[in-house]
Amino acid sequence: MPATPFLAVDLEVLDANIERTAAWSADRGIALRPHVKTHKCPEIALRQRDAGGSGMTVATIGEAEVFAQAGFDDLFIAYPLWIDEERHARLRRVSEWAVVTVGIDSAEGARRLVGSGVSALVEVDSGHHRTGVDPREAGELAAAAVAVGLPVVGVFAFPGHSYAPGGREEAAHSEADALLRAATSLRDAGVEPHVVSGGSSPSLAATGVGLSEVRPGVYVVNDAQQWELGACSTEQIALSCHATVVSHAGGRLILDAGSKVLGADRPLWASGSGRLLDEPQARILSLSEHHAVVDMRGGPLPGLGTVVRVVPNHACNAINLVDELFVVADGTVVDAWPVTARGLNA
Amino acid sequence: MPATPFLAVDLEVLDANIERTAAWSADRGIALRPHVKTHKCPEIALRQRDAGGSGMTVATIGEAEVFAQAGFDDLFIAYPLWIDEERHARLRRVSEWAVVTVGIDSAEGARRLVGSGVSALVEVDSGHHRTGVDPREAGELAAAAVAVGLPVVGVFAFPGHSYAPGGREEAAHSEADALLRAATSLRDAGVEPHVVSGGSSPSLAATGVGLSEVRPGVYVVNDAQQWELGACSTEQIALSCHATVVSHAGGRLILDAGSKVLGADRPLWASGSGRLLDEPQARILSLSEHHAVVDMRGGPLPGLGTVVRVVPNHACNAINLVDELFVVADGTVVDAWPVTARGLNA
Repeated sequence: MPATPFLAVDLEVLDANIERTAAWSADRGIALRPHVKTHKCPEIALRQRDAGGSGMTVATIGEAEVFAQAGFDDLFIAYPLWIDEERHARLRRVSEWAVVTVGIDSAEGARRLVGSGVSALVEVDSGHHRTGVDPREAGELAAAAVAVGLPVVGVFAFPGHSYAPGGREEAAHSEADALLRAATSLRDAGVEPHVVSGGSSPSLAATGVGLSEVRPGVYVVNDAQQWELGACSTEQIALSCHATVVSHAGGRLILDAGSKVLGADRPLWASGSGRLLDEPQARILSLSEHHAVVDMRGGPLPGLGTVVRVVPNHACNAINLVDELFVVADGTVVDAWPVTARGLNA
Repeated sequence: MPATPFLAVDLEVLDANIERTAAWSADRGIALRPHVKTHKCPEIALRQRDAGGSGMTVATIGEAEVFAQAGFDDLFIAYPLWIDEERHARLRRVSEWAVVTVGIDSAEGARRLVGSGVSALVEVDSGHHRTGVDPREAGELAAAAVAVGLPVVGVFAFPGHSYAPGGREEAAHSEADALLRAATSLRDAGVEPHVVSGGSSPSLAATGVGLSEVRPGVYVVNDAQQWELGACSTEQIALSCHATVVSHAGGRLILDAGSKVLGADRPLWASGSGRLLDEPQARILSLSEHHAVVDMRGGPLPGLGTVVRVVPNHACNAINLVDELFVVADGTVVDAWPVTARGLNA
């Protein structure tokens, strides 16, 4: 085994997650466009495509470049890019390899994309209150973009408010409602919304009505957030950090995995800074950069040198910390996959 | 300029931080052993050494390997390592290039280090309640380590409880008290405490009495945590993330810097998920992976495409996300330094 701490993906669980979600999508006739920002790893994206994913979703031009080079020919950059000349040239190059669609939420941002070879989806705020226009204004923005020469092919939203206990169904419903109104707004403005795109991993089960595609990311490996939101079972968690017990100081359990391999994500509703996959009653009280302090909550204290599996709170940020993911099958490391798009924020 | 978001270090501020802290240490006759986990960058460590840092502190064997190869010949791994055969061999190799000291907080952990060529410092819990023994038990552990053949040269603590509003002085005092008691405990057990090592960036100003060396890390660049704890002024912040305004959706200010370049650190006492260096009244309400949502709190809304400087909450975790640090002098990028030890958690 590699030296701890390292991130490992359980191949059987990974493939089961991919198959189950592909089947869910096929059953409903909704295209599945997985968000590869979660894993940044072409090997995993290939398995998603083989199971029936149509195109892929990415977050940055850098990710688009990596996945276009890896042979993916239909990429949606789900972000309202603000591009300068250099990024315009990069987009033009990627557009020669793949069909590229980009998010827009302002007329100024849209104008800059003209001539880069991309089409656009209007981003709609469905209640997450981050980026995206009011659904009623989607048609006006679409028409403005088309008028300056940027093709607009539909609308998209990200229901990030699904990341709240008990909020998954409501987020899916508000998203469907916002996307429906945005699509109508586009039609009223004379722009046909071929693509109506939404979905997040927590809200996926309640998503579907009126959408032409979904873009979940985390579902492929899951994490402690999905676990605590009730969006997955522990049997569906493919990602874990193998960590060694290094100290029993003061009767505490200290692991050699900290925020530099797990990420520092800790939403206020989370029960801790990650979970132990094989000790569901335990809680990670705090993380330092190279320490996790664990409360076993009545479970036996694992001995010094024991290796345990920690589930990060947020898979996307954990994987973005490592250069390779170790692949585990039947309890053995059988491969290591490069996280090719790691760190590509621009 | 590179494409945003990118991390930049202001050379003039960096050098001033290095000089000021080296002078502080020289004035008091306390050795300065900077913790290079903050920057993982040999170029910065060389500047720290040139200003009068004695040895360097690292957190992992991987960091020790990088800095030993870069020519640093006195390294303290401030961590209670639990080593197997492979790590034993790695330590032995590093010990051929450098004087290596390692933390211990258990007799079992200490026994495994025997024959690896390292000496040890006993870690003491001074109130942070993470790793480290009770100060009164330090002598017993030191004697046990010496008895099995591991040289013990002193004691160390990390006053992590200095990371709390109003807690800096109290943390420094409880640390000094714990280290004094631990040193006495060693002497009583017949082990001479040549090294009495402590210090964190927040508590540094109140640190000194009874210590032979200090190991601050973040002071070299500072961050929003140090700013909000009152441990630095804004003029002493050398690290920022250059980020572009990409959206004004809903009247909000959205930047292209998120948790994948700033880190997700947000202690409960922090006022937000980082700060804007040039807009001290503003607050970062939330971070996604590629978005910061900013409340300007009455300040004018920067226009789309404007580049602003974001100060991460936690410099160590932010720098560990990037492969290079851009070096800024007089407002221009003049160099890029590799973050050579990035991701070396093992």
